[in-house]
Amino acid sequence: MVRVTRNYRFSASHRLHLANLSEEDNQRLFGKCANPHGHGHNYLLSVTVEGPIDSRTGLAVNTFELDGLVREHVIGKIDHTYLNRDVAGLNGIPATTENIASFVQSQLQAAWPGTFPALAHIRVQETKRNVIELAVIQREV
Amino acid sequence: MVRVTRNYRFSASHRLHLANLSEEDNQRLFGKCANPHGHGHNYLLSVTVEGPIDSRTGLAVNTFELDGLVREHVIGKIDHTYLNRDVAGLNGIPATTENIASFVQSQLQAAWPGTFPALAHIRVQETKRNVIELAVIQREV
Amino acid sequence: MVRVTRNYRFSASHRLHLANLSEEDNQRLFGKCANPHGHGHNYLLSVTVEGPIDSRTGLAVNTFELDGLVREHVIGKIDHTYLNRDVAGLNGIPATTENIASFVQSQLQAAWPGTFPALAHIRVQETKRNVIELAVIQREV
Amino acid sequence: MVRVTRNYRFSASHRLHLANLSEEDNQRLFGKCANPHGHGHNYLLSVTVEGPIDSRTGLAVNTFELDGLVREHVIGKIDHTYLNRDVAGLNGIPATTENIASFVQSQLQAAWPGTFPALAHIRVQETKRNVIELAVIQREV
Amino acid sequence: MVRVTRNYRFSASHRLHLANLSEEDNQRLFGKCANPHGHGHNYLLSVTVEGPIDSRTGLAVNTFELDGLVREHVIGKIDHTYLNRDVAGLNGIPATTENIASFVQSQLQAAWPGTFPALAHIRVQETKRNVIELAVIQREV
Amino acid sequence: MVRVTRNYRFSASHRLHLANLSEEDNQRLFGKCANPHGHGHNYLLSVTVEGPIDSRTGLAVNTFELDGLVREHVIGKIDHTYLNRDVAGLNGIPATTENIASFVQSQLQAAWPGTFPALAHIRVQETKRNVIELAVIQREV
Repeated sequence: MVRVTRNYRFSASHRLHLANLSEEDNQRLFGKCANPHGHGHNYLLSVTVEGPIDSRTGLAVNTFELDGLVREHVIGKIDHTYLNRDVAGLNGIPATTENIASFVQSQLQAAWPGTFPALAHIRVQETKRNVIELAVIQREV
Repeated sequence: MVRVTRNYRFSASHRLHLANLSEEDNQRLFGKCANPHGHGHNYLLSVTVEGPIDSRTGLAVNTFELDGLVREHVIGKIDHTYLNRDVAGLNGIPATTENIASFVQSQLQAAWPGTFPALAHIRVQETKRNVIELAVIQREV
Repeated sequence: MVRVTRNYRFSASHRLHLANLSEEDNQRLFGKCANPHGHGHNYLLSVTVEGPIDSRTGLAVNTFELDGLVREHVIGKIDHTYLNRDVAGLNGIPATTENIASFVQSQLQAAWPGTFPALAHIRVQETKRNVIELAVIQREV
Repeated sequence: MVRVTRNYRFSASHRLHLANLSEEDNQRLFGKCANPHGHGHNYLLSVTVEGPIDSRTGLAVNTFELDGLVREHVIGKIDHTYLNRDVAGLNGIPATTENIASFVQSQLQAAWPGTFPALAHIRVQETKRNVIELAVIQREV
Repeated sequence: MVRVTRNYRFSASHRLHLANLSEEDNQRLFGKCANPHGHGHNYLLSVTVEGPIDSRTGLAVNTFELDGLVREHVIGKIDHTYLNRDVAGLNGIPATTENIASFVQSQLQAAWPGTFPALAHIRVQETKRNVIELAVIQREV
Repeated sequence: MVRVTRNYRFSASHRLHLANLSEEDNQRLFGKCANPHGHGHNYLLSVTVEGPIDSRTGLAVNTFELDGLVREHVIGKIDHTYLNRDVAGLNGIPATTENIASFVQSQLQAAWPGTFPALAHIRVQETKRNVIELAVIQREV
């Protein structure tokens, strides 16, 4: 069993702000991320699958197919967007890195082909200082 | 004569779009950067000064003072903002990396102390693929 | 459950040398790190916490509070120091990356607030070639 | 218990191509990696060992000995080679990153000294976008 | 006047070896790069253009057009190749980083559109330790 | 004419402190770098030479010879040292990055072989935030 990780980049903007909190509480929770017109990041997304090496091809996953899946269901929906407004799955919830990682997980699990090795791990890096990781419960085989 | 470069990071969002162009022309010029609600980046700003080494201190510039200047006149004005709306110096012009570099230059030249070595070079990296550099005409001494 | 990792940098010097060993044995164990007057590194410290996403805020941890804790109890005590002499918790033991990671763990566990998600993992990178990681036994809940 | 990771670089070329497949199927599986005369990469190999910290030396492993082992049994055999032709352990199987990681594992397990802490993890990065990891079943102690 | 640099990656293999030299002299000149079946690298190519900022668009160059040019005339000809055999412009001369940079310069100068700002600089990074740069004599305007 | 840059790493410690200044003035000039027992960094040194490409070998410089020169006259003298005490050329002057770059320049110019292309540029990176560069006046040919 090996793990294969593919890295993808996307650029997006967001604002972290809860309408039912005072400005002071928004600042305490989100700091400058609560600024009124949003701001943005170059995000780095890492998707990890886990499975056996196919003894004929020497591959654990066809990375072209994996890339196509991630581009269609994740990158194509969030790259060069204002996450708060443009991404349906983040509507009404704060566009934190934690919620972005959960969104990626839902998108991939819903679209995951039965022929693929298990989706194992998702990682979203917002800046060099801030990283979120999420271990995906593996499918029963 | 040596050059001292200090690196600073800021996160901001922008939208590249000209109101008097068709959507097709905006796409041709700016691609996904013309998307309606903007998007963002982690920018890396490098500021370079040039001068002799002070033989007593071994320094060409007091980097604490330089950092204070850059934070007050540049980073404090653009970090965690929507450049199109929040930054006066970018009002009415496209928030391209080229114009951001020019804005940094104007801000620094206007505030540059007579006691500092010459401002020599400004570099703004928008993503790992895209970098703008600007050689600053040095002050007469 | 997600993991949130925050990265911190500090610069410090150390010397690896055991007084009760011959110079030859010190060289065999520590190489150039046994040089008489020490040397230094830019260390990268990664602290990982693990917990559920708060459905209201979209956060697994308040990173401002986490940063404050790490700065007060770790970075403020080791940044810009000579680890062998300036850091009480490393007195009398070799200032190896392994022991630095253990020191970080003790400092954080002693100060860890009950309101925080579990401390899960500590990583100390000394150079691009050398990394120490330490999985923290999670608190009983 | 801590984990110590050491990073090593090597440069090599390879070609991914199965003789019993059509060109079309080779392209579908391997893309440009099936090009007739091969191509190459700067690989980054990470080897992780796991064990207790020796209370006297503050070390979990003698990294000079570990480096010597990895250089002799892995880097010295694959650095600056054409993997398909020059590396006996990759003869007759595709030189995918998955198979390179397996090769590293076999080489290290066969040569692993009884005095070393357990070999825990192997990671091979082919490009910034593509990473393979392999958890090594730990030896019975 | 600003400089715009775009970065591109390609993976290729090469062998450095002069047929009319002894093996000893080849080793002295090229070291392991003279190994019989070649080896490879992930190269990083940086192309820099220099010109004024268009006051209407805020751009110094249309990067989509620049990327198209570099992909067609450079990356498309060298990515995933064995440089010694697959690249006409490197036939009969050693595929050193110096000669790769010269090849990039010839390709770009031959195809450079009159409507583009001047080609100013080419940089080829072979590994983290080895970089070649080439200032391009600017076109008369 | 091309420029060839080789990168080297070294780890060292230093203290920035002038005996004839008050503690307050030392803090104002050097901040935490004035701490009493010093601290350290992983430095990155870049040495750039400039010359024509040899049409037979395709090389502008024999990098093995250049590396040997830099290792003997620079890296071997400063790696794993306390710069203030262990390096003769930095005795009695502050071990700032500026003075380290000057020291590298003197060492290389004194040892530079007549058969080498011109020494063109020296760059010393102390941390990701702080870089010193020094253009070397080229030798008359």
